[in-house]
Amino acid sequence: MSKEKSIIGIDLGGTFIKFGLFDGEGNLKEKWQIRTRTESNGKWILSDIGVSVSERIRAAGLTMDDLAGIGIGVPGPVLKDGTVNRCINLGWGVVQVKEELQKITGFRNIFVANDSNVAALGEMWKGAAKGHSNVVMVTLGTGVGGGILINGKIVHGAFGAGGEIGHINISESETEPCSCGNRGCLEQYASAPGIVRMAKKELAESNRVSALRDKQFITAADVMDAAGNGDSIARGVKENVAKALGRALANVAAVVDPEIFVIGGGVANAGDILMEAVQRHYRQMVFHASQDTEFAFAQLGNDAGIYGAARLTLCKD
Amino acid sequence: MSKEKSIIGIDLGGTFIKFGLFDGEGNLKEKWQIRTRTESNGKWILSDIGVSVSERIRAAGLTMDDLAGIGIGVPGPVLKDGTVNRCINLGWGVVQVKEELQKITGFRNIFVANDSNVAALGEMWKGAAKGHSNVVMVTLGTGVGGGILINGKIVHGAFGAGGEIGHINISESETEPCSCGNRGCLEQYASAPGIVRMAKKELAESNRVSALRDKQFITAADVMDAAGNGDSIARGVKENVAKALGRALANVAAVVDPEIFVIGGGVANAGDILMEAVQRHYRQMVFHASQDTEFAFAQLGNDAGIYGAARLTLCKD
Repeated sequence: MSKEKSIIGIDLGGTFIKFGLFDGEGNLKEKWQIRTRTESNGKWILSDIGVSVSERIRAAGLTMDDLAGIGIGVPGPVLKDGTVNRCINLGWGVVQVKEELQKITGFRNIFVANDSNVAALGEMWKGAAKGHSNVVMVTLGTGVGGGILINGKIVHGAFGAGGEIGHINISESETEPCSCGNRGCLEQYASAPGIVRMAKKELAESNRVSALRDKQFITAADVMDAAGNGDSIARGVKENVAKALGRALANVAAVVDPEIFVIGGGVANAGDILMEAVQRHYRQMVFHASQDTEFAFAQLGNDAGIYGAARLTLCKD
Repeated sequence: MSKEKSIIGIDLGGTFIKFGLFDGEGNLKEKWQIRTRTESNGKWILSDIGVSVSERIRAAGLTMDDLAGIGIGVPGPVLKDGTVNRCINLGWGVVQVKEELQKITGFRNIFVANDSNVAALGEMWKGAAKGHSNVVMVTLGTGVGGGILINGKIVHGAFGAGGEIGHINISESETEPCSCGNRGCLEQYASAPGIVRMAKKELAESNRVSALRDKQFITAADVMDAAGNGDSIARGVKENVAKALGRALANVAAVVDPEIFVIGGGVANAGDILMEAVQRHYRQMVFHASQDTEFAFAQLGNDAGIYGAARLTLCKD
């Protein structure tokens, strides 16, 4: 690829579509976002993307010929041919993202991958996992997403489900169902709603004093803040989050044994109090050879998706 | 590589060292084995290998110059530089297998990998996973070994622990320790000794009639045979083996989402009765996208190791 050519990285989310215009060396030149129109089963999303890209390209004094590639991360399983199989947040069933975007833009060099995998790629390229090529990223937010990179490349999976770490089963005894229909998934413990769910359960089952009892609505951040202040109920919940995550990541290590785990998403804002506990539980449970896996917090925040999507266009397969 | 050149594949086990002489297209021309001398911390093993290779090469009318490569699978974690970190079965601590074998044989093109990973490579090349490039193999024997192939290449892992499927944690409630020191590893349920352990426990805890009560020594094969004959205690144990394996493989799928699972090792001789139950439990527990992963029994038996070791010499990294 010529260094003068530009790259577009797109992070397609359920609320916003984020865009980044990069130079050929991966420097972010400009970023913008538009709302995601999820009405009518998201039928306008891809044409909205096409319009926004061509408008900005023109405004930047460029044409499509000045682009080396367009990369896009989507919130669902992506098959090898760039087909997406069900994105609940977008209202999509089966959508040929790559093919349709090629038609809409008249541009061929389009790369599609799952958003969590793409975020991992972004962190490897320009963030917390720089210098590594075997990376596992876990994103703790409304759900729990995961991305696996082996030899610098995304593990997409045969059915687009590579890195679905949120649905690793970590409990035999869970009685409530996960959003996926199973019981005992990591997501039920380490997502923001999972943390709130556990806190409410603890508050209902015990009479202990807790700052959380004064809140009308409890958020995951409230729980982590209270844990930091020594609140015993909140600390118990924090330990359970860390134990669930440590157990799941120990199982991930028994499969791909990465160099580094990168933890991102809103829940990661809890910081060291969470990180210390996750590593402690991980080391207790992991196979001895993998005791020394590195841990780091994600560094790119909301930009991981556009960085990773841009990097996607530089992958050779 | 010239097609006329030959390849040596070596499977280094705790009792025997197996050798295969292959032509450049992977046809097995000759195989032989020698005993593994584990005395004196296995210090003779590599020189025994060197002697055996050069003797056979000469006997076949070849010289070392006629070899394209030598591949070897070893029963322990292997780092990128071909160093092995602790092989309990061989009495080894840290051994520079690649470097030492290069010195002993005077031959440079030597490739070293973990034996379970190598067996997976063999099954992909010439066995049950032919035509696939994203493969997970699990070997149920004295222990539970695993091998992961992504895009046709072994996932060695940062600490040589890629594919340590036997040490995926699948039970929170286990009280007995695994050989690795943890509690609740797959190996405690799906290895031959694990099956015998569960059967003895069931027999002790219940008064139900069982053909297993007549045996002085129970083997895993006895348990599976009795399960096939409708013995209710043995059937319960078989369901527990299958549930443990189904659960662990569902977790593996949430990480690498392979095209196919290959099941090998002595326990796999139980055949369809085990396979049906494993797939049933897998489908109940796996993330919905990966419902249709293929399952197959290994086809190369004890030769998987020499085939995979030969194939290792053809890998580009």
